[in-house]
Amino acid sequence: MKHFVSMKHLSAAELLQLVQLAADIQAQGVSAYRQQLFAANLFFEPSTRTKMSFTVAERKLGLEVLDFAAEASSVTKGETVYDTAKTLQSIGASVLVIRHPEEGTAGMLAEKLDIPVINAGDGKGEHPTQCLLDLMTIYQEYGRFNGLKVVIAGDIRHSRVARSNALALQQLGAQVFAAGKPEWMDASMDLPVLSMDEAAAQCDVMMLLRIQFERHDKKEAAAGYLEEYGLTKAREKRMQPHSIIMHPAPVNRGIEIDDSLVEAPRSRIFRQMENGVAARMAVILTLLEGRGMQRGYNFDKREAVNS
Amino acid sequence: MKHFVSMKHLSAAELLQLVQLAADIQAQGVSAYRQQLFAANLFFEPSTRTKMSFTVAERKLGLEVLDFAAEASSVTKGETVYDTAKTLQSIGASVLVIRHPEEGTAGMLAEKLDIPVINAGDGKGEHPTQCLLDLMTIYQEYGRFNGLKVVIAGDIRHSRVARSNALALQQLGAQVFAAGKPEWMDASMDLPVLSMDEAAAQCDVMMLLRIQFERHDKKEAAAGYLEEYGLTKAREKRMQPHSIIMHPAPVNRGIEIDDSLVEAPRSRIFRQMENGVAARMAVILTLLEGRGMQRGYNFDKREAVNS
Amino acid sequence: MKHFVSMKHLSAAELLQLVQLAADIQAQGVSAYRQQLFAANLFFEPSTRTKMSFTVAERKLGLEVLDFAAEASSVTKGETVYDTAKTLQSIGASVLVIRHPEEGTAGMLAEKLDIPVINAGDGKGEHPTQCLLDLMTIYQEYGRFNGLKVVIAGDIRHSRVARSNALALQQLGAQVFAAGKPEWMDASMDLPVLSMDEAAAQCDVMMLLRIQFERHDKKEAAAGYLEEYGLTKAREKRMQPHSIIMHPAPVNRGIEIDDSLVEAPRSRIFRQMENGVAARMAVILTLLEGRGMQRGYNFDKREAVNS
Repeated sequence: MKHFVSMKHLSAAELLQLVQLAADIQAQGVSAYRQQLFAANLFFEPSTRTKMSFTVAERKLGLEVLDFAAEASSVTKGETVYDTAKTLQSIGASVLVIRHPEEGTAGMLAEKLDIPVINAGDGKGEHPTQCLLDLMTIYQEYGRFNGLKVVIAGDIRHSRVARSNALALQQLGAQVFAAGKPEWMDASMDLPVLSMDEAAAQCDVMMLLRIQFERHDKKEAAAGYLEEYGLTKAREKRMQPHSIIMHPAPVNRGIEIDDSLVEAPRSRIFRQMENGVAARMAVILTLLEGRGMQRGYNFDKREAVNS
Repeated sequence: MKHFVSMKHLSAAELLQLVQLAADIQAQGVSAYRQQLFAANLFFEPSTRTKMSFTVAERKLGLEVLDFAAEASSVTKGETVYDTAKTLQSIGASVLVIRHPEEGTAGMLAEKLDIPVINAGDGKGEHPTQCLLDLMTIYQEYGRFNGLKVVIAGDIRHSRVARSNALALQQLGAQVFAAGKPEWMDASMDLPVLSMDEAAAQCDVMMLLRIQFERHDKKEAAAGYLEEYGLTKAREKRMQPHSIIMHPAPVNRGIEIDDSLVEAPRSRIFRQMENGVAARMAVILTLLEGRGMQRGYNFDKREAVNS
Repeated sequence: MKHFVSMKHLSAAELLQLVQLAADIQAQGVSAYRQQLFAANLFFEPSTRTKMSFTVAERKLGLEVLDFAAEASSVTKGETVYDTAKTLQSIGASVLVIRHPEEGTAGMLAEKLDIPVINAGDGKGEHPTQCLLDLMTIYQEYGRFNGLKVVIAGDIRHSRVARSNALALQQLGAQVFAAGKPEWMDASMDLPVLSMDEAAAQCDVMMLLRIQFERHDKKEAAAGYLEEYGLTKAREKRMQPHSIIMHPAPVNRGIEIDDSLVEAPRSRIFRQMENGVAARMAVILTLLEGRGMQRGYNFDKREAVNS
């Protein structure tokens, strides 16, 4: 694994290895790098949890963080993404995290740069670290993927989260279904479609997507959405006792999901965020070790290593 | 003390203890935390000194800083403040600093989160760490609060600084007066009102407030303000030899105060900023020790600890 | 050297010393400071490489970084640059890096503050750390400046990079020429003018400048620019075998330089960026040692110091 750009490139064995590594890191902590290494975070779209989660992950590994803010950068002077990224490599970044509105940006950089590239979301393309933390959350619940019924519900056509998760979950043997407005389904992903009532009753995992109001007229998209396509209290009651609710967040409360369910006992939404740190540490660690960077140094000589 | 949201909740003894701790920290430095801990700074309004001051305070305690920039975050996607804050807790923040335009935001988060919340300014509500550094500055000057005449001058009605200081100074036995435009007085605070001429002649502490041009028409608010309600050179000459000038800054030079007085010998304006770091360290320290976080580790093994 | 504001103030010996120090740092690394010191980076104009480069330089020296974002600061409340800078000094900054659209800002601060000030670009004034990294790049190539033919090509009149480089290179004995649109020449700099064809054929160093589309109508400025005043593939072929291409970046690909030449064998553009880190470390080090700050502490006790 030289980059982390798409779930397409990973085998089931590689995926399970990453999930296991993330779980180990979460349970035991990890020692930091011997050298002073720099991670560059390039976010060309707004982000809270992905960006902060990467920052925490990087600091826990002892990496320095170069926080690139597109809006105050030479991008405003018309610089290409490639030149910006190559600049960060030139001034010393050892790993590059990129979120960009254009599909394929991370993949293009992975081909051209000498340092590992991590895709933190590329347009409607993929969001593989979100996928990895989702896998970790499901694995913590069930200890397996094989045979699980996972429903992805919402605007699948425009969702990079849906794309990465469908790829990875199928690779791992889960049965993946879609639910949502007919015009939001994506034929290219070839998922069997369920109504939200069927989905709620049958799923082991209800994976809700955020309505991207950036892409839709807000009033029109929100009107009646919860009743028809969202997770209402009534639908939640019909879910199986063991089944769980997931959402990549930010949540539109009262639209994709009833406000009161966001922190319901079967909701794993904030657990997902917690898992995001360990998942991203696992990715960075795997990439840097692939480049021969050695750990072994106890972070700041603190007694409890990253405890 | 589980949070630091309002001066209402603190006794005189608790206030004095914090002032003393801040003074000790300033004089002696302090050792950092054993564990790697993260502080999250959430600023939903512009800030220079408060934000930078918290950053320095946190780094001097050895904390990692999560710098949340509202304008590049999921807040732009419509996420609630609570969800954003809970996200930062989920990814590992041990303490949360929040500035928000809406009164009561810090208090709401303090009720709902598991980690200590520090109010860095909530609309027209309070600004308790600014208050603490003001108390520290006065205490360094006089060694007491009892019987001191403190004038708060300016737009009191809209000032969270005024509110926190009036509460705390009265609690500590100072006599607090108001001065300024009649329509900027605040009946609910029940402070005796002086003219600026009386105020200058009688006060031990002249605490000027910033005109918040964000809230007022600038030209109208500024016209003739210095002469009528500001600290002119003439008024400064009538101040008692020992009395001092304070201002939370940023200063509108030539409006609240004559340009030449900002760095006059009796001005403590930049001293206040210096004190802000130690005051905020005292608050963070008290909150984290209340949660069982242990210090004792010499920061980065440097010989002089935070010297 | 108490500040680093203009190339005017530096002798040839001082310049060579800085170039040599930067080269040593790049080759050997450097140990960090014993104390916890803070560097404040104040950027009032967009920047990628200069800002990130300073950040890396500061972290490699073990300095804490205060990252001041003008757009989310009290500057939006009308605070003066001086008050903002003095605030950062008050809360503990030991060195101040400033980029500002107004010429003379860094110089003004250097006169008024007690801490060293580094000019990271002041309007059309100077950009002395860019100059230092350019000198370092030329020195690595030729081991001398005396007698070298350096052409500065582009919008010289508005370029702080041109101004700093012309001053320093002449001081060091190089022959400096200008090339570009007649209305972009600057009589005050008194450089002999060459056509781009002559420049390409004769120079040892072709130093291209960025067209600042912020200052010019983009379409008008770009039309036919490459053919008439830029470095085309045909001109590059006429360059001497040993001569090199430089550009401070960001590059307008296809305008100042043919797209394919940006990473040509004789291009030193990304090498310049790499050198920027060591050049800035040399400046900060020299300034802080002038103030009695001692290094000697191996950063984080890592085995390889800043390797």
